[in-house]
Amino acid sequence: MEAFSDGVFAVAITLLALDLVVDGPGHGPLWSQIAHHWPAFAAYGVSFFTIGIIWVNHHALFDLMTRVDRPMLYLNLLLLSFVVAIPFVTSTLASYLRVPGASGTTAGLLYAGVMEAMSVSFTLIFVHALRADLLTVAPPAEQRRSAVLRFGLGSVAYLGVMALSFVSPVATLVSAAVLAGYYVFQRTPDVPGDGPGI
Amino acid sequence: MEAFSDGVFAVAITLLALDLVVDGPGHGPLWSQIAHHWPAFAAYGVSFFTIGIIWVNHHALFDLMTRVDRPMLYLNLLLLSFVVAIPFVTSTLASYLRVPGASGTTAGLLYAGVMEAMSVSFTLIFVHALRADLLTVAPPAEQRRSAVLRFGLGSVAYLGVMALSFVSPVATLVSAAVLAGYYVFQRTPDVPGDGPGI
Amino acid sequence: MEAFSDGVFAVAITLLALDLVVDGPGHGPLWSQIAHHWPAFAAYGVSFFTIGIIWVNHHALFDLMTRVDRPMLYLNLLLLSFVVAIPFVTSTLASYLRVPGASGTTAGLLYAGVMEAMSVSFTLIFVHALRADLLTVAPPAEQRRSAVLRFGLGSVAYLGVMALSFVSPVATLVSAAVLAGYYVFQRTPDVPGDGPGI
Amino acid sequence: MEAFSDGVFAVAITLLALDLVVDGPGHGPLWSQIAHHWPAFAAYGVSFFTIGIIWVNHHALFDLMTRVDRPMLYLNLLLLSFVVAIPFVTSTLASYLRVPGASGTTAGLLYAGVMEAMSVSFTLIFVHALRADLLTVAPPAEQRRSAVLRFGLGSVAYLGVMALSFVSPVATLVSAAVLAGYYVFQRTPDVPGDGPGI
Repeated sequence: MEAFSDGVFAVAITLLALDLVVDGPGHGPLWSQIAHHWPAFAAYGVSFFTIGIIWVNHHALFDLMTRVDRPMLYLNLLLLSFVVAIPFVTSTLASYLRVPGASGTTAGLLYAGVMEAMSVSFTLIFVHALRADLLTVAPPAEQRRSAVLRFGLGSVAYLGVMALSFVSPVATLVSAAVLAGYYVFQRTPDVPGDGPGI
Repeated sequence: MEAFSDGVFAVAITLLALDLVVDGPGHGPLWSQIAHHWPAFAAYGVSFFTIGIIWVNHHALFDLMTRVDRPMLYLNLLLLSFVVAIPFVTSTLASYLRVPGASGTTAGLLYAGVMEAMSVSFTLIFVHALRADLLTVAPPAEQRRSAVLRFGLGSVAYLGVMALSFVSPVATLVSAAVLAGYYVFQRTPDVPGDGPGI
Repeated sequence: MEAFSDGVFAVAITLLALDLVVDGPGHGPLWSQIAHHWPAFAAYGVSFFTIGIIWVNHHALFDLMTRVDRPMLYLNLLLLSFVVAIPFVTSTLASYLRVPGASGTTAGLLYAGVMEAMSVSFTLIFVHALRADLLTVAPPAEQRRSAVLRFGLGSVAYLGVMALSFVSPVATLVSAAVLAGYYVFQRTPDVPGDGPGI
Repeated sequence: MEAFSDGVFAVAITLLALDLVVDGPGHGPLWSQIAHHWPAFAAYGVSFFTIGIIWVNHHALFDLMTRVDRPMLYLNLLLLSFVVAIPFVTSTLASYLRVPGASGTTAGLLYAGVMEAMSVSFTLIFVHALRADLLTVAPPAEQRRSAVLRFGLGSVAYLGVMALSFVSPVATLVSAAVLAGYYVFQRTPDVPGDGPGI
């Protein structure tokens, strides 16, 4: 299953770059075209590292599983269905990054909403792994509740990113970047749930 | 062979999302654009989980094979040639989902026809695996006929989806979704043929 | 190296399907659109199975290698550089399939030329594997010359496909299909060189 | 981690070929269209082998690692974020290859700048592997400084490619091709740092 998931992550992360474009000769100086398209570059950067971090945590969690049951395969598909949607919501957020008002908010909500759905799916994967006893190293029973809470912290944080979409689409992107940055500098948990996923 | 097949499934499932687009700023409120493009989102969802389920069953069947012969490689290529066509028929079905009449029926037949061809290829893979004795765990000889029949149930079901294309393209998509849903909640067969593939 | 090559084959074979398009609602009955675009479907079919067959033979040859040296890595990159160009030449051949005269011939030469280059690269891989003693099972020294000749038969056959491009682009596609079909029904060689590659 | 990285390299190298296009029937003889689009073909060739060489060296270095820590995962993501941007900068360089003046220089700087960033990331990976003691075969402590210098030679060379962008975008492409060619014919280092990366 890892090979398939790795493939989906790899394709999704690479398709992000399809949104990097310039208009080409005859559309003014190249430098000003790139400057004009800065939202695409900024959104690419944030989404690239967000997908990268999910992959790192996905890999770390599945490496701890001794076996994978059928519900886990479908929970993983659910997670991947949102990962695959990231290039679309990234491109949409980039298009609307300088558009104020309702459409900018919609673009932000779409972006943060897919991240939220991804984060919730990832927490469901962790919860199912605990319940179905799929992990080699699991937190002791009395600490499971708090482990799930810490693991699912990202799901709460992305609700905040969704709320910030009502400020502006730039606020959505910046807060998503800060959140991704937080996870980059998070130390590796030795026991799953000892640190959050995303 | 698994790595190559996993790669094809991963790329095909991710390319599906290339069909998720909005028209961008200057084309009305973003929310109404998304609402207007609902067929693309609905078709993406159904096709994503259909490819996902085929992958799960493909993986489960090939894990039971001790070896793979040359005819099996080509039967697998035949299956993959239809998997790879799914993004195209999905995009076409989405475009014609609100188009009544002959063209809508054609779009539905195209979609269900590729699913049918994929399902038949998968049944051929199972039949060849039995005949060429490639499986570690095979049903006893007297039960093979019924095992093949149960495995090939999807091929019959997709004929029904094809028939429903004459009602409307929405009927095609809904019945394909119901069929995919049925397979999601199907228990894992311990012996291949004990439950259907797709 | 297998994982990377498998990935390139998988992406190239899936990108072929990006060329399957219809014009959409408002461009006449869907069925006649598909009929009009038959060259794209025919070219897709031939190229899909050609890439598939190369992959099967690539896989079979590399499975026989005990180790891979640096020249082999670059010969493999050379092969992959032509594999990756197949979606482009397929799309071009499809566009010119009904165009008579010089441009149709150019499209055919481009298609058959990339196949020829791929076939020559594959023969070079086989020759290098023999010379650098990388194979677990190698034909005895006195039979190497004839083994290389038989392996390199595809390189000669694609010269014939190139020649047929001067007849018409349809002749190119049909002869490439016949050649691919020949390889599908070719029995697996137990010793490399006992049967041709492509 | 190899599977994910291999996937990203494979998709990025294959997406390069999406830039190979002709205008199609009705736009003059096909041969002159291809001749007109030579920058796309030249840029494709150079970028294909550059990504290929990075992959070869990436593979060789990671094969020497006994384990991978979390900083290494993120350094690898940093490297991949530039690899994934290569199709974009390749396409842009091709568009501006015949455009003199500031925009041509910008296109060259963009191309060489992404290569430089990739090269620096790769050197950082090597430095971190030495410092965190992740390699099975490492140069002795007193030779580390010179090993890093030799490994990081590519980072210096790409500064030269950037400087040549002020001459013309063709100078950028030719010097990048020469640099890639140099690495192809470089012998395999037995100990990392014994030969440069890229």
